Amino acid sequence: MSRVYNFSAGPAVLPVPVLEEAAAEMLDYRGSGMSVMEMSHRSKVYDTIIKEAEADLRALAGIPDNYKVLFLQGGASSQFAMVPMNLMKNKKVGHIVTGQWAKKAFNEAKIYGEAVELASSADKTFSYIPDCSDLAITPDMDYVYICENNTIYGTKFWQLPNTKGVELVADVSSCFLSEPIDVTKYGVLFAGAQKNVGPAGVVICIIREDLITEDTLPGTPTMFKYKIHDDNGSMYNTPPSYGIYICGKVFKWLLNTGGLSARKDINEKKAAILYDYLDSSDLFKATVEASSRSLMNVPFVTGNDELDAAFVKEAIAAGFENLKGHRSVGGMRASIYNAMPTKGVEALVDFMKNFETKNK
Amino acid sequence: MSRVYNFSAGPAVLPVPVLEEAAAEMLDYRGSGMSVMEMSHRSKVYDTIIKEAEADLRALAGIPDNYKVLFLQGGASSQFAMVPMNLMKNKKVGHIVTGQWAKKAFNEAKIYGEAVELASSADKTFSYIPDCSDLAITPDMDYVYICENNTIYGTKFWQLPNTKGVELVADVSSCFLSEPIDVTKYGVLFAGAQKNVGPAGVVICIIREDLITEDTLPGTPTMFKYKIHDDNGSMYNTPPSYGIYICGKVFKWLLNTGGLSARKDINEKKAAILYDYLDSSDLFKATVEASSRSLMNVPFVTGNDELDAAFVKEAIAAGFENLKGHRSVGGMRASIYNAMPTKGVEALVDFMKNFETKNK
Repeated sequence: MSRVYNFSAGPAVLPVPVLEEAAAEMLDYRGSGMSVMEMSHRSKVYDTIIKEAEADLRALAGIPDNYKVLFLQGGASSQFAMVPMNLMKNKKVGHIVTGQWAKKAFNEAKIYGEAVELASSADKTFSYIPDCSDLAITPDMDYVYICENNTIYGTKFWQLPNTKGVELVADVSSCFLSEPIDVTKYGVLFAGAQKNVGPAGVVICIIREDLITEDTLPGTPTMFKYKIHDDNGSMYNTPPSYGIYICGKVFKWLLNTGGLSARKDINEKKAAILYDYLDSSDLFKATVEASSRSLMNVPFVTGNDELDAAFVKEAIAAGFENLKGHRSVGGMRASIYNAMPTKGVEALVDFMKNFETKNK
Repeated sequence: MSRVYNFSAGPAVLPVPVLEEAAAEMLDYRGSGMSVMEMSHRSKVYDTIIKEAEADLRALAGIPDNYKVLFLQGGASSQFAMVPMNLMKNKKVGHIVTGQWAKKAFNEAKIYGEAVELASSADKTFSYIPDCSDLAITPDMDYVYICENNTIYGTKFWQLPNTKGVELVADVSSCFLSEPIDVTKYGVLFAGAQKNVGPAGVVICIIREDLITEDTLPGTPTMFKYKIHDDNGSMYNTPPSYGIYICGKVFKWLLNTGGLSARKDINEKKAAILYDYLDSSDLFKATVEASSRSLMNVPFVTGNDELDAAFVKEAIAAGFENLKGHRSVGGMRASIYNAMPTKGVEALVDFMKNFETKNK
C-alpha cells in the first residue's frame, strides 16, 4: 500500500484515518454484522449514524437551531435548479458570476425567472472577485447568489457581498469546513461533499427554516422540494447512506483535530507555502490576484504550454497526482483541501524548485 | 468479524467478495495510491472503472446498442418526475398501480399531465398483479408505467402488460438483475441500486436512444434531462463515483457466478424453500397470491400482531436481521436478493419451524 499526494479538485483526498476506519468496518460495522452499505436506512444503527453526522456538523460549523441541515443527492448542479424552484417567489434574482459553476447556476436560474448579472469577473478570465460593496440589488430580488470559492479559477470571496438586506445563497462546495463559517449570514448554503467532506453523491444543504415552504414553482418535482426532505429528516427516499456515513467520519476527524479555527490556521499556513513560492519563482506564477486567492485551489502556470505539460508528467512520475489544470483553463492547479497534509505541499514546492532549477 | 443474515429490503445485503475487495482497495486502488472515493471522475483510472461497469452490465443484461445506460442520482423517486418531464409529449400516460411506489410515480405524473389509472390491485392490499392483457390503453398515451417488482407488497409482474404498441416504462429497482431481462420490451427501465446492485445513491437508467430528445417539458431542470446525461456519458456533473465502482464489482460477481440465467435458477430455488414452507405451515402464511409472488421480497404473517413482534425479536437475537414488515403493512418480510445465500434462507426456515413448534 503506497499513497500518492493527490491534488485532485474533486473527488479529492480524504483523511487516512477515515479511510482506515471505513475499510475496517466494511464487512461488519461495530458488531452490527453488516456493512453500512447494506444497512436499512430506517434501522436504529443507521439512524444513529445520520443523527450523529448532523449533530457533529452542527457543532463543527456552529449551525443555529433555526437552520435545517439536509443531506441530499444530485450534487450542487441540482441545487442550481432546486434553489430557484423553492425560493423564486418574485421571479427575480441577482447573480454574481465568478466562474464556470457560478455561470451554470446563473443560466439555470434564467429558466425560472429574471436573473440579473450583478457583477462578473469574466473580463479577466475570472482571476479575481469583483467589488461587491455596492451592487444594483433591488428589494424585489428573492436572493443574491454567489459561488463562494471557485474551484476552477482558484478565487474566494474573502468578504461576502453587501446584499442590502436581500437573502444570500451560496455554493460553498470547495471551501466548506475549511474555516469557521457564520451561517447566519446566509439564507441557504450548500456544498457537494466531494471536495472537503466525503464521497461524491452527497450534497449538504443548510437552509434557514423560514425559507422552507410549500410554495414552490409549478412543476417542481417532489424530490426538488426542500420541505419534503426537511419533513422527512432527509429520508423521504433512501438517502446516499454510505456517503453520509463517510461525511460523518470526516466531521469527527475535524472535531478531533481542533475544529474549524484550528483548521483555518493550518490551511492558511499550508497555502502560504505554495503562494509564497509562486510569488518568488521566476518560472511559475499564480494566476489569481493576491486579494482573491483561494486557500483550497491554487492554479498556476509557467506561461509555456509545453513546459506545463512536462511539469505535470514529471510530477506524476514523482508521486504528485492530478496537478493538471481544469480542461477549460489549462496550466496547473493544486487543490489542497483539508485532508492534504502540509508535508504534501512542502514536497510539491520542493519538487517545483527542482523543476525550476532544471529548466532555467 | 461476524456477519448476520440481513433480510433488509434496501439498502440490502451485498456479496461478501465485493465487500472484501472494496475494503482491501480502500486506501490504494490497484496501485493508484488513492481510494476510488478520492479519485477524479475525469481520471483515466476512474474512466476505466465506469466504462467497465457499463460494459459488464451490457454483457450481463444483453443490452442492445440502441439502448443507453445512464448512471444517475436521486433514486427511483427522481425518475418518477424525470420520466414524465422527458417523455410526456402528448401529456397523457397510463399507470398500473400495484403498490406504494407505483402510486407515488402515478401521483408524480399527474403534476405534468393526464395520468390514467389503467389497473390497480388496491382492492386487496396490493396482494396480486392485476390482469393486464386488455387494458384501456389509447394510442395517444406517451407510455404505460409499471413497477415490475413491488418491494413492500412482494408482488412481481410475471407477464408484462399488453401495452398495445405504447412504450413501456418500468421501475425494476427490486428485481433488476435477479433474472434474465429482455430490454427490448421496454422504452425505459430504471433501478435504484440499493436492492440488488450496490449502495444507495446510484440509479441506473436504461433507455432506448430515440426516446432521448431535447424536447422536454418547460421548466425541466438541466439535471433532469436524459439528453444532458447521455451527451456527457453520465458525467455532466460528478457522478456518485464510489457507488458506481461498487455496482461494477457486483456486475463482475454476477458474471463470474454464471450470469443471469444461473442467477434465476438459484433465486427460484431459494424462494421456493421459503414459499414451500409458508404454504405448508400452520402458523405462518404468505400474503401474496401464488401467481404474483416475487422471488425477491417475501411478506408473511402469523395473523397475530403480538406473535409477529415476538418472532421478529427472537429472530434478531438469533442473527436474522430486518425481518419486520414495512411500516405501512406490518407482519414480516424477508428480502432475499441475489446476495442472500441459500443457506441464509434455509437457516431462516429452520428458525421459523422451531418458532412454529414452540408456539403451537
